[in-house]
Amino acid sequence: MIATNPVDVLQALIRCPSITPAEGGALTTLQQLLEPLGFEVSRVMARDEGTPDIENLYARLGTDGPHLMFAGHTDVVPVGNEAAWSHPPFAAEISDGMLYGRGAVDMKGGIACFIAALARLVEEKGAPKGSVSLLITGDEEGPAINGTTKLLDWAASRGEKWDACLVGEPTNPDQLGDMIKIGRRGSISGTVTVHGVQGHAAYPHLTDNPVRGAIRLAESLMNPPFDHGTDNFQPSNLEVTSIDVGNAATNVIPASAVFKFNIRFNDTWSAESLQAEILRRLDAAAADTTLRPGREPIGYDIVWSERPSHVFLTRNNALIASLSDAIEKVVGASPQLSTTGGTSDARFIKDYCPVVEFGLVGQTMHMVDERVAVEDLETLTRIYRTFIEQWFANAAA
Amino acid sequence: MIATNPVDVLQALIRCPSITPAEGGALTTLQQLLEPLGFEVSRVMARDEGTPDIENLYARLGTDGPHLMFAGHTDVVPVGNEAAWSHPPFAAEISDGMLYGRGAVDMKGGIACFIAALARLVEEKGAPKGSVSLLITGDEEGPAINGTTKLLDWAASRGEKWDACLVGEPTNPDQLGDMIKIGRRGSISGTVTVHGVQGHAAYPHLTDNPVRGAIRLAESLMNPPFDHGTDNFQPSNLEVTSIDVGNAATNVIPASAVFKFNIRFNDTWSAESLQAEILRRLDAAAADTTLRPGREPIGYDIVWSERPSHVFLTRNNALIASLSDAIEKVVGASPQLSTTGGTSDARFIKDYCPVVEFGLVGQTMHMVDERVAVEDLETLTRIYRTFIEQWFANAAA
Repeated sequence: MIATNPVDVLQALIRCPSITPAEGGALTTLQQLLEPLGFEVSRVMARDEGTPDIENLYARLGTDGPHLMFAGHTDVVPVGNEAAWSHPPFAAEISDGMLYGRGAVDMKGGIACFIAALARLVEEKGAPKGSVSLLITGDEEGPAINGTTKLLDWAASRGEKWDACLVGEPTNPDQLGDMIKIGRRGSISGTVTVHGVQGHAAYPHLTDNPVRGAIRLAESLMNPPFDHGTDNFQPSNLEVTSIDVGNAATNVIPASAVFKFNIRFNDTWSAESLQAEILRRLDAAAADTTLRPGREPIGYDIVWSERPSHVFLTRNNALIASLSDAIEKVVGASPQLSTTGGTSDARFIKDYCPVVEFGLVGQTMHMVDERVAVEDLETLTRIYRTFIEQWFANAAA
Repeated sequence: MIATNPVDVLQALIRCPSITPAEGGALTTLQQLLEPLGFEVSRVMARDEGTPDIENLYARLGTDGPHLMFAGHTDVVPVGNEAAWSHPPFAAEISDGMLYGRGAVDMKGGIACFIAALARLVEEKGAPKGSVSLLITGDEEGPAINGTTKLLDWAASRGEKWDACLVGEPTNPDQLGDMIKIGRRGSISGTVTVHGVQGHAAYPHLTDNPVRGAIRLAESLMNPPFDHGTDNFQPSNLEVTSIDVGNAATNVIPASAVFKFNIRFNDTWSAESLQAEILRRLDAAAADTTLRPGREPIGYDIVWSERPSHVFLTRNNALIASLSDAIEKVVGASPQLSTTGGTSDARFIKDYCPVVEFGLVGQTMHMVDERVAVEDLETLTRIYRTFIEQWFANAAA
């Protein structure tokens, strides 16, 4: 395989059926590509009770600073209805200029382009002055317990330090060069249980209907808006994702009602200040909500789901400019600097170094017939190569 | 057994374990009590696909008018946690002046008192001038498909006509003589499904969260109040008894949300006019609710649960006065004329003749240790006897 050709590299990676949590040969393929380029490759197994064992990979070229990290994952989501694919999901077939396969854009394609970019640079100009590392996990599409966080811990405990990171996730909504992610909203979920007093629907004065309370508490989280957006972020948005009572008897007022919510929040808030605001709203609504005259205000419990995802915004102008300039040079237009969308592993990396995200067009990710334009692979390879050179030049200046 | 002693009669009935839909010997016991008093007794089996076969009883004393019906049921609800009873639920034991047993107040006690009252009257003065019928079902606590409605149909098809009916259900909240029911609110239930567009919680602009719509539609039914009550009825009251989404994934906006409601309504409304008002409110809320800008108003479906229970109010002053005067004569205070509480089989009977309801104190109905004061059995027997004499006297006048 010629590592300088991103199509070759991507086909080799797609043909490894690395459906999360399986390694599927994908990391071995990477190791075989990276060692000839001069990388020192480590395979890092991570375990945690109750989650699958995961194999990860960390590879470093060079020993000195400045140190640029490229981060990504080789695990892919399941194929869904395999019969609906027009080309087998692990065959990596090319048809009408499109390369088909699970992981084509999310995100074996990004990895393939970065390796090809680096291989071209090494071939033509030698290794960059400094270090380049690849931090590749097999647990981004799964529980994300044994992936990027553990790999970062492992590397940091060996003394690894990075000056900047590029995450190769698909970031472009429509066409290559549309959008860089320079931050991500945070995400917090919670489950609220509202307690009432059960009874017969014909005697509501002997009951407290918790459905009324659940509706009022849920509304206190939906209105007013938490903020109106900031310079770099869209407004924080809360969705009530479920309300559940499970009462089958229409003549019975139930004892409790449960609702779940998720908020994607911007840099108006920290996770802590936002949780405090959510509790303030719930407490105020509960204190205001006497389900029937003369009774106590309603009671509720809240359970926060797992750990929150913290909001972050990258303010390293040299990093952003290196990437943005590279895109403009290759595609002729400058990208939007965005903080939209879901969370990504960048939320873990930002605790170690400034991080930006740029990859392929995400339209077919997780879908049947996931595919990438062969032309986009060449374009992204050229963007990544220009970025690498630009970043090291900026870092040296 | 001495039919003039309500305690004897009630003990015999409680010892028949007639947990709905079982006859349990209760109707046979009634037949053995009624035939010696001169009643012609019919046992009427009712069947309907998908529901248990039910045995009912119709008994008539006399052939001419005026014709007074007493209606009730011998089936009882299950005993619940039998170990928690202080006396076995079918033993009919008396302790400290209380007679314990499932059905003691709901409503074998009422039947026992009516039979004792009539037996005393027949023994002392002979049968009333006119007719007295007992319409006793074994399907009041069950689906109520093969009970009172079918028994009324059966009797009416044989030419039976009634001038008034007394239902012997427990109507007194605290003590005997508190309350007559002279009507009942109607009851309508419905299930509303609100349709949205599923998607990722991080991309709400690509979705329509049906939870927001369900909350708005549910609120349109809860506010403003449907009415403020009428001369004889408390305000109509709607409760949302369940909201269900069943979405376990906190990062997913669901495709639909379902809520159930039940309204107990007064004589401001017919079932039809109320259903029209509910649809008007839902339509108005749906038309007002665009879940996201530029999208269609939300869509919803409604399914009405079974047949509605119609509201009714008895305006037969002679019937009400006969009962009210009898209570005042025996207990020294006049009862409240009420239309509160749930539905009862009176809602079926009111299509045939005026109907009122009066029985024992309902506090322990459906509970562990259901029980009745022995003293109350004697008092209710005296009230019923006075009522029967009074009603026939009024009817003859």
